[in-house]
Amino acid sequence: MSDEKKMEQELQAVIEAVKPLDQKAMEKARRRMDVLTKPQGSLGRMEDLAIQLAGINGDFFPCDTKKRVVVMAADHGVTEEGISAYPSEVTAQMVANFTGGGAAINVLGRQNDVEVIVADIGVKVDTDLPGVKRVRVKAGTDNFRRGPAMSRSETLQAITAGIECADEAEKDGVKALATGEMGIGNTTASSAVMAALTGYEASLVVGRGTGLDDEKLRYKQEVVTKSLELHQPEFSDPLEVLSKVGGLEIAALTGLILGAAQRRIPIVVDGFISSTAALAAVKFCPNAWHYLLPSHLSAESGHALLMDYLNLKPYINMGMRLGEGTGAVLGMNLLEAAARVTLEMATFEDANVSNKEENSVGSDSKGAQ
Amino acid sequence: MSDEKKMEQELQAVIEAVKPLDQKAMEKARRRMDVLTKPQGSLGRMEDLAIQLAGINGDFFPCDTKKRVVVMAADHGVTEEGISAYPSEVTAQMVANFTGGGAAINVLGRQNDVEVIVADIGVKVDTDLPGVKRVRVKAGTDNFRRGPAMSRSETLQAITAGIECADEAEKDGVKALATGEMGIGNTTASSAVMAALTGYEASLVVGRGTGLDDEKLRYKQEVVTKSLELHQPEFSDPLEVLSKVGGLEIAALTGLILGAAQRRIPIVVDGFISSTAALAAVKFCPNAWHYLLPSHLSAESGHALLMDYLNLKPYINMGMRLGEGTGAVLGMNLLEAAARVTLEMATFEDANVSNKEENSVGSDSKGAQ
Repeated sequence: MSDEKKMEQELQAVIEAVKPLDQKAMEKARRRMDVLTKPQGSLGRMEDLAIQLAGINGDFFPCDTKKRVVVMAADHGVTEEGISAYPSEVTAQMVANFTGGGAAINVLGRQNDVEVIVADIGVKVDTDLPGVKRVRVKAGTDNFRRGPAMSRSETLQAITAGIECADEAEKDGVKALATGEMGIGNTTASSAVMAALTGYEASLVVGRGTGLDDEKLRYKQEVVTKSLELHQPEFSDPLEVLSKVGGLEIAALTGLILGAAQRRIPIVVDGFISSTAALAAVKFCPNAWHYLLPSHLSAESGHALLMDYLNLKPYINMGMRLGEGTGAVLGMNLLEAAARVTLEMATFEDANVSNKEENSVGSDSKGAQ
Repeated sequence: MSDEKKMEQELQAVIEAVKPLDQKAMEKARRRMDVLTKPQGSLGRMEDLAIQLAGINGDFFPCDTKKRVVVMAADHGVTEEGISAYPSEVTAQMVANFTGGGAAINVLGRQNDVEVIVADIGVKVDTDLPGVKRVRVKAGTDNFRRGPAMSRSETLQAITAGIECADEAEKDGVKALATGEMGIGNTTASSAVMAALTGYEASLVVGRGTGLDDEKLRYKQEVVTKSLELHQPEFSDPLEVLSKVGGLEIAALTGLILGAAQRRIPIVVDGFISSTAALAAVKFCPNAWHYLLPSHLSAESGHALLMDYLNLKPYINMGMRLGEGTGAVLGMNLLEAAARVTLEMATFEDANVSNKEENSVGSDSKGAQ
């Protein structure tokens, strides 16, 4: 059997191993929410999050667990078309910055107690640095405006590397994962993937990335439109879409998400690029959706539309558009909050507080349950 | 001079002592944001927050500082009208729960490294408990559907107690404050204060509070409308509005906000009740606005409208409506993030990363600045 066939079978096995959430654990968490000392439902979506986490974990989600963000870095041949405000060299320079601890993801990772793993899945210049996990498939994708970004086999290699990162996280005792990425040109690839998988027009999904002016934005839209015309990828085949117009980091994050879902690890999705990977993951495996946690709404214009498409409602709105996983690690703080509320809040009975159901307005009852 | 006159003069002195933000410090922070290793502006509103914090503090805002939420607790005579899903007794029971560490604010305060101070500014039953700061003005307001909630002098006492809490915070080395409250019936008082100070109809500002059905919601709207007809408070006089239809905790939080602004301490505003206090503070002192930090968007229906009116855009959207300061302490994590990004991120020069301005797309420059 060819390596490609083997990888495809392994991917299929992961997809089939993703199970729905544990309904019993969710019901237990729901009941818990209703006896904690607060009006029922008053923690809103934090209660829903706590219930989802229980469903993923099979019981109340533990506090103060090991959390990790995996930052997948890769380059994009399509930068030859002049669609980014920054040169490709910046990808490798930022990988070095990640290992030095000076990037935004390092700062916010430390603050939110999230370990940062940086993986080189295909940076143009080999980032042979201590602290970089080297899972390189190739030295960046090819220019998809001219031909496929990568072969089907390379795409499967990247997805497999992502799955293996989830497996490794489980072995390391990580209980919550987040997606991160670095890759000059990757909003263009993400836009193309989103347009191909949703059928939306390029004008709706292409944004300014790291900071394009109006003229360059129009040009970027044209590059995406023409690339899709060239490849005509089959919208129901995420593997084909990723290989024709995707990116190595997008494919690897797709794998990370599928692997996390298989391992029953909640996965916090960052901004536009990460959400494109989430979209591909859900196209591969609809059940993976239950393991996704939104984090922030990116300022990148296609993100709001993509969140709507995915039926995910971001918790944080700070107008960020940096990537790296920065929004996701801020979201990790909300995951931790939901876990702690579940386990640390007093119940009405514990605290001898009157519950609405047992009292009429103005009664003197002291709330015995 | 009467005590009332004296308190009024002291309040006026605080208001006059609130200064605009430090423009030099803001410019310094703005320049810093532009040399950090990220595309310019890509941290969006987190950059604006970092710049605002510098303007408040007079220099970059320090990391890992002492943070405090002040939870003002009081009762409301208007609960006699049956406008809450919970009996007044719950206020005192929840104060006891706060001191026991079992409420949501305790859990989220611990998680986000925010000290919780609970102050009894007017709970019906005297909460003579260790750990409660007793600044009681009276045993709850009077029923404002029948007469004024409190006298002008009592309102000033509550505001003064809030100002003193800010002074005390400064003495204790607290660098960031948040507002919190507990008071059965206080969404009704807040709605009345908001309607009086903005001129909006009761139907727009009154919400379900801790969980009213449609019929009780309509009745609550009627109570607010009739109370405003009864008192006809002068919209340009926040002291009159607070005294006629306000609450002791709302007045105290108004004082806390004014005191924080005077002491140049950023103050993170929680949900609907806290935002009503922020509205009153800004009516007293427009400059206080610069010291306000939004946190979350409450599910209480009037909050979105109030945030728009105040030109504050919440960072977090979890559909919470619990109060206590729970949204504000989650917001503290974003304040800390902004401080750390400012001080801990590497610059382009430090990290030898190419900056857009110095490079054309595809150039080989290594970004020497």
